[in-house]
Amino acid sequence: MSETVHFADGLALDCGQTLPDLDVAYRTYGRLSPAADNAVLVCHALTGDQYVAEPHAATGRPGWWQALVGPGKVIDTERYFVICANVLGGCMGSTGPTSRRPDGRVWGMEFPPITIRDMVRAQEKLVRHLGIERLFAVIGGSMGGMQALAWATTFPERVFAAVPIATASYHSAQNIAFHEVGRQAIFADPDFMGGDYAAAGKVPERGLAVARMAAHITYVSEQALTRKFGRKLRATDVRDISLFGDTFEVESYLRHQGSSFVRRFDANAYLTITRAMDLFDLAAEHDGDLTRAFAGSRTRFCVISFSSDWLFPTGQSRAIARALNQAAANVSFVEISTDKGHDAFLLEEPDFHAALRGFLAGCAAHWRRETA
Amino acid sequence: MSETVHFADGLALDCGQTLPDLDVAYRTYGRLSPAADNAVLVCHALTGDQYVAEPHAATGRPGWWQALVGPGKVIDTERYFVICANVLGGCMGSTGPTSRRPDGRVWGMEFPPITIRDMVRAQEKLVRHLGIERLFAVIGGSMGGMQALAWATTFPERVFAAVPIATASYHSAQNIAFHEVGRQAIFADPDFMGGDYAAAGKVPERGLAVARMAAHITYVSEQALTRKFGRKLRATDVRDISLFGDTFEVESYLRHQGSSFVRRFDANAYLTITRAMDLFDLAAEHDGDLTRAFAGSRTRFCVISFSSDWLFPTGQSRAIARALNQAAANVSFVEISTDKGHDAFLLEEPDFHAALRGFLAGCAAHWRRETA
Repeated sequence: MSETVHFADGLALDCGQTLPDLDVAYRTYGRLSPAADNAVLVCHALTGDQYVAEPHAATGRPGWWQALVGPGKVIDTERYFVICANVLGGCMGSTGPTSRRPDGRVWGMEFPPITIRDMVRAQEKLVRHLGIERLFAVIGGSMGGMQALAWATTFPERVFAAVPIATASYHSAQNIAFHEVGRQAIFADPDFMGGDYAAAGKVPERGLAVARMAAHITYVSEQALTRKFGRKLRATDVRDISLFGDTFEVESYLRHQGSSFVRRFDANAYLTITRAMDLFDLAAEHDGDLTRAFAGSRTRFCVISFSSDWLFPTGQSRAIARALNQAAANVSFVEISTDKGHDAFLLEEPDFHAALRGFLAGCAAHWRRETA
Repeated sequence: MSETVHFADGLALDCGQTLPDLDVAYRTYGRLSPAADNAVLVCHALTGDQYVAEPHAATGRPGWWQALVGPGKVIDTERYFVICANVLGGCMGSTGPTSRRPDGRVWGMEFPPITIRDMVRAQEKLVRHLGIERLFAVIGGSMGGMQALAWATTFPERVFAAVPIATASYHSAQNIAFHEVGRQAIFADPDFMGGDYAAAGKVPERGLAVARMAAHITYVSEQALTRKFGRKLRATDVRDISLFGDTFEVESYLRHQGSSFVRRFDANAYLTITRAMDLFDLAAEHDGDLTRAFAGSRTRFCVISFSSDWLFPTGQSRAIARALNQAAANVSFVEISTDKGHDAFLLEEPDFHAALRGFLAGCAAHWRRETA
């Protein structure tokens, strides 16, 4: 089961509001070294959570990065102390729209808008609570990669290595547009009740399912969808086709994605987290100059992209690597050739795993020298 | 105003059902020559209609192809007799889900599933009714391009030239998936009432708006969205951001796209027509061999794609051109360089217009020789 640490001093947010108190739910794997110098923070994506390397507490399904995190694996829990926290704004135990305010009422739609940096600040409190001054590495894909970037720029002295995977330094207009479709689908569900569904004992299941379906298409490449489903019909004859049933395999797959998602995720959390991603723009505070965001950084970066990822295309990762180079930071950049799309970071991708393993081994050698 | 021709003999459909009667609403521009040899059929896309070259009867907005169709324009109405019919299954006067059955009841959700070829068969009845044995050209973009292909393969002797633009010989798994998200958004709207909303005096506005928003993203390139909106905030300070308002310009744009669409389109028509597109697969009847679909064709083809169209990527047009070549058909293939995405076929694109103008001029010379 997940542990939760309570911070009675709350958290000051970018929006100007302050959360009166803060819970951070997290899981750890491996053992922290006596010198507290072997900690790896793994950051999860939009719909992920702290169950990285073990069955999920609610669904029983394998951890979302069990392929990478475990004894002897790429992120080796016999060597590293791996931490993963449910993000601020989430719905798996950390403070978010499903949490209660001090007066006992659920936050719901009144939960303040948060940023990726707010999520990172909440994680920083956890890391400090665990007695860790400096993280060996911060690693994450998609929104997790945004957090890795926010860590390295917000707390540069406390991150030895950062691995932003399948991500970008800002959320593009197209990505914002896809999120907006999902939000509108949720708003359109009468069971959303302006966000007050919990008080009414309702769940905006249909809207949230549509949001998930729209998002899911963006997570896979066209090739992957075609390989998996092609135009496979569920009916064998056009005469058996109805306007309302599942005609194609890909339709029933999407419907399943939607309906299984609503059992484990909260609509207000989805709104809160998608909005945080949309607001992410590392260069914005530096007059649009990403290089300045990384100025003076001593963190070692490994930027990883996937060739068929059209949600966070390689060009966006390359722009991060270029800015890091211009800032004279230590960076390696790897584009993995794959036809699996954005979700490749969650899947068995031997080249990706080899690249990450190699980078971590190289960093560990430097780290030992530096801490010796 | 649009004219409507009524066919009391109805229409036999691919699904095995027969429509007891058939209305085809259409507009024509220019004058039919005495020999009836100057007719150009223009086919509209998913949400288009017969108002090609004049203000729309309902919205007052300019015709959807006014840039191309008119006196002295690329499709020159001083030379050609241009016809455009509202598709079967549509909601602008042709028989579709909003029409009444012989017993007076509205079809609604009981309107049979139709195919692109069914649409073309309805147009064929109109063309015959107008006294035209052979069309000089059939031209259309997106779903209109599917119709151009269906015309050339269903009635090969009656189409001298065909111009499928920004289209494909089948709807891909990804495109089906995007349509399915839109359909699910409509089904999720309680005002849809299982399709019986008209009888109840309701309109599933929210679901249809979400469907339109999702589709709209696929019609434009990422570059076009970025150029138009970038990450422009409507609020000037993150502290003014709410979870529910429009934060980014692109959001209010999308919401406008959604809300203006529901005033001119019917939800059951949207379901019917998207399903017809999804079922489109020219090669399917020929064991997957597209070449055989074009065997023996004497039609002259000009296949046109747009470099930044990710809904119907160039590769899908190239596959059509390749199959036509293998069938020893007469084909030219043009990819237009543009960053405007799928919607480029509706916009001012000088290279596209020049290519179409050149192709039509060349065909006209051959056509004169053949009919002389």
